[in-house]
Amino acid sequence: MPLTILFAASGEGWARYEAPLRAAFAEEGLDVTLGTDLAPESVDYIIYAPNSEVQDFRPYTRLKAVLNLWAGVEDAVDNPTLTVPFARMVDDEGLTQGMVEWVTGHTLRHHLGMDAHIVNPDHEWRHVAPPVSADRPVGILGLGELGTACGLALTRLGFPVTGWSRSEKTVDGITCLNGRDGLHETLSNAQILILLLPDTPVTQNTLNAETLAMLPYGAFILNPGRGPLIDDDALLAALDSGQIAHATLDVFRTEPLPRDHPYWDHPQVTVTPHIASETRPPSAARAIARNIRRNETGEPMLHLVDRDAGY
Amino acid sequence: MPLTILFAASGEGWARYEAPLRAAFAEEGLDVTLGTDLAPESVDYIIYAPNSEVQDFRPYTRLKAVLNLWAGVEDAVDNPTLTVPFARMVDDEGLTQGMVEWVTGHTLRHHLGMDAHIVNPDHEWRHVAPPVSADRPVGILGLGELGTACGLALTRLGFPVTGWSRSEKTVDGITCLNGRDGLHETLSNAQILILLLPDTPVTQNTLNAETLAMLPYGAFILNPGRGPLIDDDALLAALDSGQIAHATLDVFRTEPLPRDHPYWDHPQVTVTPHIASETRPPSAARAIARNIRRNETGEPMLHLVDRDAGY
Repeated sequence: MPLTILFAASGEGWARYEAPLRAAFAEEGLDVTLGTDLAPESVDYIIYAPNSEVQDFRPYTRLKAVLNLWAGVEDAVDNPTLTVPFARMVDDEGLTQGMVEWVTGHTLRHHLGMDAHIVNPDHEWRHVAPPVSADRPVGILGLGELGTACGLALTRLGFPVTGWSRSEKTVDGITCLNGRDGLHETLSNAQILILLLPDTPVTQNTLNAETLAMLPYGAFILNPGRGPLIDDDALLAALDSGQIAHATLDVFRTEPLPRDHPYWDHPQVTVTPHIASETRPPSAARAIARNIRRNETGEPMLHLVDRDAGY
Repeated sequence: MPLTILFAASGEGWARYEAPLRAAFAEEGLDVTLGTDLAPESVDYIIYAPNSEVQDFRPYTRLKAVLNLWAGVEDAVDNPTLTVPFARMVDDEGLTQGMVEWVTGHTLRHHLGMDAHIVNPDHEWRHVAPPVSADRPVGILGLGELGTACGLALTRLGFPVTGWSRSEKTVDGITCLNGRDGLHETLSNAQILILLLPDTPVTQNTLNAETLAMLPYGAFILNPGRGPLIDDDALLAALDSGQIAHATLDVFRTEPLPRDHPYWDHPQVTVTPHIASETRPPSAARAIARNIRRNETGEPMLHLVDRDAGY
């Protein structure tokens, strides 16, 4: 008997995902009934995006698990009707690789001082070479899948990387710190700071007036993580004072970023439209099919959400 | 008896190099007399930049070798009075690393479409993610020290890299081609093309109207190699037609780039002021001291110029 799998995401998801999902299920040897409109009591698995119309999971009486299409789960983790195992998207091929490229690219951009050459309104030949990466310490807040992958990529390019995480971690080649003292030490050395923490009540406003002041004068901020990690007013004040030289932000409390938001006009802010880590359908479909196959063959599912931690 | 070593480079070289050189010679266990004004007949080695006042080497009757401070030797290789062994600068720590950072950074910049976000005059939220690096073929012309190091760094970031060289080469992870057919194949697949050939009579105008037309429509050019590799008029025409989307150039036939050169004003050109690969005094000094120590202890010197090939 085929597995019944509901695709529940709003927008153009189905058009982009149907073919890759069918191919991925076939590759895993799974016989599936896949659709966007299936009787709730028949559904075995839901492929889910938190913006879906499905917000009440109670009618899905035989549901075995929900597989999120997004890396972020904060919009669904508190749903009291979602009681079955709930897997985050960890798509190394698409999400993680995209994040590594965005983080590495913008780190090198600020390290090399590219903007002065890209804009260069006075056409001046200023023969000043940047330091090499070994002389540019980078800090990463968050050493999950994404933070670790980005830290390792930067390490391979020669940057000294310090990573901070809530719990103690060890990653070869990265100086790993945790706790309040560890945060202070990470910030005080980071000429470029990258935010890759999850969005939880504890991590909101991690970057505030106090922590921004711990960074070296003229530091660069990259936020490809979550909008609420930053106290926006404190960041704007730190940009205006020169404490922060530039912030490149991919995520915001409200998206799309409202047209009248001061970030748009600020000369020391670069806005990218939440593109750092995007689910790419072929690789995301393979990750989902693999996880369902694992559950069906008695292997533990990967990347299940820890509801107490909130991610 | 100490070795007598002349430092012959114009400009601020001596102020930046004296201390690193003294430290590097001490590290190699060499007793040296080092200066900028020494009797020619007493000199054992010359640390040289082609812009030096020393252009006639005949008075240096006991000279054992000349060690170039620059990677490029084209301004000195034809000097008929320079007959002793002549070593290029190969400074993996400084020159090569700087080049890898510049090439990787600008490759990612064009790959990610950063300029649209850095400038973004209309403050539009365009939620379009770039492809992942695996879908962005890169070509490198030149697989010497620099081309190989850059190609490997790009490979580690997931880019499919094809490298072309005059002679046949093999580099793990890079598709290596050579010859006229190989050039055509390299160009026809390269969405981003990186020029890292030496400047020789054979390589001048490698990128001309014919070869620019072999690239995919909308390709990006990076030239951190040598100015004469490009036929500038042909490149300007290819930019204007859209065949080339953007060129980021670090080297030019005349440097500093003259103020009235059309590259300065062209919206599809980024000028960087010959900073991609800069000799950094500490690591360059170590490379020079190590090479002199090799010669003094009977080991072959590294990176000697092949005068027939011109580099």
